Amino acid sequence: MPSSAADPTPVVLHPRYPPGVDEALGRIPEVELIRPADEDGVVAALAGSPVLVTFRWRDEFLTLTLRWVQSISAGIEQFPVEAFGEKGVVLTSARGVHGPQVAEHAFALLLSLTRVVGVSMRDAERRVWKPRMGEELGGKVLGVLGLGAIGEEIARRGVAWGMEVIGTKAHPAGYRGCAARVYPPEQTIEVFRRAQVVISVLPDTPDTRGIIGEEALAALGRGWVVNVGRGSAVDTGALLEALDRGELQGAGLDVFEEEPLPPDSPLWTHPRVVITPHIAGLSPRYGPRLAEIFAVNLAAFRGGGDWINRVV
Amino acid sequence: MPSSAADPTPVVLHPRYPPGVDEALGRIPEVELIRPADEDGVVAALAGSPVLVTFRWRDEFLTLTLRWVQSISAGIEQFPVEAFGEKGVVLTSARGVHGPQVAEHAFALLLSLTRVVGVSMRDAERRVWKPRMGEELGGKVLGVLGLGAIGEEIARRGVAWGMEVIGTKAHPAGYRGCAARVYPPEQTIEVFRRAQVVISVLPDTPDTRGIIGEEALAALGRGWVVNVGRGSAVDTGALLEALDRGELQGAGLDVFEEEPLPPDSPLWTHPRVVITPHIAGLSPRYGPRLAEIFAVNLAAFRGGGDWINRVV
Repeated sequence: MPSSAADPTPVVLHPRYPPGVDEALGRIPEVELIRPADEDGVVAALAGSPVLVTFRWRDEFLTLTLRWVQSISAGIEQFPVEAFGEKGVVLTSARGVHGPQVAEHAFALLLSLTRVVGVSMRDAERRVWKPRMGEELGGKVLGVLGLGAIGEEIARRGVAWGMEVIGTKAHPAGYRGCAARVYPPEQTIEVFRRAQVVISVLPDTPDTRGIIGEEALAALGRGWVVNVGRGSAVDTGALLEALDRGELQGAGLDVFEEEPLPPDSPLWTHPRVVITPHIAGLSPRYGPRLAEIFAVNLAAFRGGGDWINRVV
Repeated sequence: MPSSAADPTPVVLHPRYPPGVDEALGRIPEVELIRPADEDGVVAALAGSPVLVTFRWRDEFLTLTLRWVQSISAGIEQFPVEAFGEKGVVLTSARGVHGPQVAEHAFALLLSLTRVVGVSMRDAERRVWKPRMGEELGGKVLGVLGLGAIGEEIARRGVAWGMEVIGTKAHPAGYRGCAARVYPPEQTIEVFRRAQVVISVLPDTPDTRGIIGEEALAALGRGWVVNVGRGSAVDTGALLEALDRGELQGAGLDVFEEEPLPPDSPLWTHPRVVITPHIAGLSPRYGPRLAEIFAVNLAAFRGGGDWINRVV
């Protein structure tokens, strides 16, 4: 229930959030920020608050008072969207908050591979000076799996750097971005056939699990794979086989089937792999961008204006 | 003296050249490629050939028969340009051959720093999962020292990714590139004052030595430095001090005051430094691009058409 216009709205912030989100939300005058120390505290706090900001979900959060969930993540696969619909709970996503940093991160991983930065750093740790030839992205075909808000930021940067960009999208008919050719998910293999570089920003769904597997990697051949979406999209065993066969030139991974990456994973130190610990979405500009979306949605919640990024 | 139109021109290739140059030159029908095993062999071969392709210079190469030197490097500081002028030897540079790969390399080093790839790789060697927040290039001011052919490729990529680009150029008046503001070399300090990221592609000249020193780094403050020009532009001692003070956020270096980097250099393993062993210019597309320039110049040498990249 919206509070009276004069009072600030109590907003519960889940204890796990990227740096800066708390400060940015706390600066909105209409927000009374409640910051429980743990998930039990979240359930307790929701008794007195209709709004939850979170990227984690537990069914206990669906209290009688809950009216609006602002997701901190772009993907919303963790939320029980149907139950929200039945109970009249609004769900808004953080779509658009991650684009710039995730796109830059994808190219950071990719360029570490193509410009031999990763291998040179391993040489440097042993004080070895060994020049090796890198590759150029310009002129190569980049395939983006998932041409949504984040995927489009990646595509734009690729086009600007002289790459030919293609990709996949759930509903290609409505696409109005910069990719030269867009395939529906069922034709993902075509992207692997035509591209030299494939970057995935796919969410975790039954359809995307293991999509970067044996068949796709065989279609890619001599190329590069980057994953800044969800770890489940990559069949790690098939990836390692393609790398060890010498066909796949490199893999840049920010996300993994199991996180944190298990201590015995060969990915940690594989010479053709560069990894980061699920940090593609982190940025000092994340909090301010989320707060901008939240402030618009808070106004809608309190009775004025339109929602943005509303899912249900 | 140009050979008769029917005969191929004997062309001496210095034994040190980037991969692929020999193949690409050898494919030109009008070229009879001579490949001495060492520099004494170069002097001997020049007795029977008027053309030398090289990026190294020794005064013994200035034989009576020498008529044209095609440099393999963009910079031509190693060549005795005055002596060439006096003796009527043509010098052509490889300007334009390095732009794309050096620009991509500069961003590879930069993004390794701003997106925490370098630090994460060091963590990964020890199988440590430790998320840290990266930065965004978008919205930052990029200063390019040396807005020539290579510098402009860097500037274009920065603008395309949402950076504001400024820079320096020997003669700013004639500038027609994409940088928003261009300063003459005497005002280089202004670029360090205004930018958060400085990328140098400066050649080695008396004026550029140590230009990235104490004063410049103090003017930059909390920022990043990348060097893909010549190592002499950086005062390594001042750079290390700025890094260790915690002010300079990171340095990405492909070139060094002494190469190979001496075994005792602290740069090898410095946590805020990412290094590569002078490989920014290497690319599979280097040879073909150089051969394109060489073929045009060979036609000019043999009597038809205009030279490109002619220095003297």
